[in-house]
Amino acid sequence: MLNDTLARITGPDREIGRRVTAYLDTLTKPPGSLGQLEALAVELAAMTGEDFPRVTPPGVLVFAADHGVAAEGVSAFPQEVTAQMVANFAGGGAAINVFARQIGARLEVIDVGVATKLVVPDVVHEKVRPATANFIDADAMTRDEAVQAIEVGIRAASRAVDAGCRCLIVGEMGIANTTASSAVLAVLSGEPVAGLVGPGTGIETSRLAHKRAVIERAIAARRPQADDPMEVLAKLGGLEIAAMAGAYLGAAARRVPVLVDGFIATVAALVACRLCPAARSFMIFGHRSCEPGHDIALAVLDAKPLLDLALRLGEGTGAALAFPLLEAATRMLVEMATFASAGVVSGEPGE
Amino acid sequence: MLNDTLARITGPDREIGRRVTAYLDTLTKPPGSLGQLEALAVELAAMTGEDFPRVTPPGVLVFAADHGVAAEGVSAFPQEVTAQMVANFAGGGAAINVFARQIGARLEVIDVGVATKLVVPDVVHEKVRPATANFIDADAMTRDEAVQAIEVGIRAASRAVDAGCRCLIVGEMGIANTTASSAVLAVLSGEPVAGLVGPGTGIETSRLAHKRAVIERAIAARRPQADDPMEVLAKLGGLEIAAMAGAYLGAAARRVPVLVDGFIATVAALVACRLCPAARSFMIFGHRSCEPGHDIALAVLDAKPLLDLALRLGEGTGAALAFPLLEAATRMLVEMATFASAGVVSGEPGE
Repeated sequence: MLNDTLARITGPDREIGRRVTAYLDTLTKPPGSLGQLEALAVELAAMTGEDFPRVTPPGVLVFAADHGVAAEGVSAFPQEVTAQMVANFAGGGAAINVFARQIGARLEVIDVGVATKLVVPDVVHEKVRPATANFIDADAMTRDEAVQAIEVGIRAASRAVDAGCRCLIVGEMGIANTTASSAVLAVLSGEPVAGLVGPGTGIETSRLAHKRAVIERAIAARRPQADDPMEVLAKLGGLEIAAMAGAYLGAAARRVPVLVDGFIATVAALVACRLCPAARSFMIFGHRSCEPGHDIALAVLDAKPLLDLALRLGEGTGAALAFPLLEAATRMLVEMATFASAGVVSGEPGE
Repeated sequence: MLNDTLARITGPDREIGRRVTAYLDTLTKPPGSLGQLEALAVELAAMTGEDFPRVTPPGVLVFAADHGVAAEGVSAFPQEVTAQMVANFAGGGAAINVFARQIGARLEVIDVGVATKLVVPDVVHEKVRPATANFIDADAMTRDEAVQAIEVGIRAASRAVDAGCRCLIVGEMGIANTTASSAVLAVLSGEPVAGLVGPGTGIETSRLAHKRAVIERAIAARRPQADDPMEVLAKLGGLEIAAMAGAYLGAAARRVPVLVDGFIATVAALVACRLCPAARSFMIFGHRSCEPGHDIALAVLDAKPLLDLALRLGEGTGAALAFPLLEAATRMLVEMATFASAGVVSGEPGE
């Protein structure tokens, strides 16, 4: 299934992109004056292969999983919070629920590896295993489990697209997942751990050195091959990180744009792009997180996010907050009058 | 009427701000993890005096006027485009129409000084005079006309608030109005003209030197007192700039937040704040424009805009695009579960 999906991912339609670029200059505004919104419209057209792309309704997928490394005390919150927050998602009370409702999104919460058995309604049960192993002691998961978790994500993306979603927002919940993401990023980017580890949900400075040491020990112990993204994911990653990568790949295979959230989501995007570089052209980046590793991950992906609001929550919240900009870009194409249709004299630069 | 309005503007309610700050830390997210959105929620509460402020529906006011200085060839578009774009607003085909519809806004277009007589339906006729004088030769308008134009803005803000709008977005249309705004900003900020003049809707570099020279000659000829904002506005400003300043003041007097757009809108905000410093606390800044003077105006007002998308259209578009963030901030307060209500263990930093 993964190989099938990878085979179906092709690049964007640059011809349509050129056509939309030309059309934008016929609309009643100085050429280029809507800046990044115009670039977004061109990208969305090229991704979807449509002159007038649609992004509504969006679909939000939140993947939840636990991390064995939480036992090392790398987070400000105890592991049980993962399951409690899944219940909060199901009850509609988390930040991502609020922002998903605001943008009219279909929201799905998927348990891909929460440590405890969940008895929560409205959660999709696709647990590959209950939490990863503590990667200080052992590989986080097997290679086969990593593939399974990716396939959970591919299936979730397919369900959303089949349900009519025209843009996917992919979020996560998993206590200690900035630790796993930092480890994966350090290996895939080749950057030193010290520069990319941050406070996550908010540990104190004194504990930051401990978190860094844990990651350095894990990388030294696991020794993944940096040019084998599946091995890096299996040895140091997380089940929700794998599932997110899968969701990006699944969306790209269907030519559906994905709006990437913050640090963890961007590391998952990097994994997806290492598995299939063509997936990159289906990604739009929602926001620049406070987590220091995010800038590194964005730079590796040559990505410029839409928002910069000092967010560091995850769940897909930053991407959901950026979504109205995508909607605006598509409405601009459909609804704006042209100079000709509105009887407006177009400017002559240098006239 | 202006003096009445100024007398009614008081500062924000800091006590409510503190209460909302404390409440935010009870919501199911790491403290502070929603960054600028949390700061926005606190500001909106303090502005409106409500623990759970509302910003929907928003009201968009677009003020249109012409500028005598357009005769100097400072714009890439001819003067008739002002009237043509007013017709486009009335027809629903301009960018601001599209974005106003997306956010469910009440939109009003006000002719405060278009050069020609408009025969367009659905435009509020409040023409103070047909275009300003060319300020190379004479004061743009009289002091009395500046006050009249400000009062047009105050009345428009009142109509919007009376119609139920809970947040105002104030835009403009007026060929050559970056020239007038640059002149006003140079005097009010004390910054050299060279550093703040930009291409506006898109003149070529060769014409930029001409635009700068026109502004420098006008300032030398008009010699307004920098500490008399009404004089600066009358001698170098524009009718729509005055009306925008009035709309901000009118909103502040009703404790309704205003979302400030780009360069011209921010210069009008500076005029309003010089007339009444307390008005500043009712302003949120929507975006950082490409126009070089915008950074200077923002710095003088100590303002950090929400978006940075290389926009340079005006009309209120950047503010309208930022509006969903305000809505998200207010929904976060109303709709998110608390740690207690959701049964989620809150984190203990340093635990």
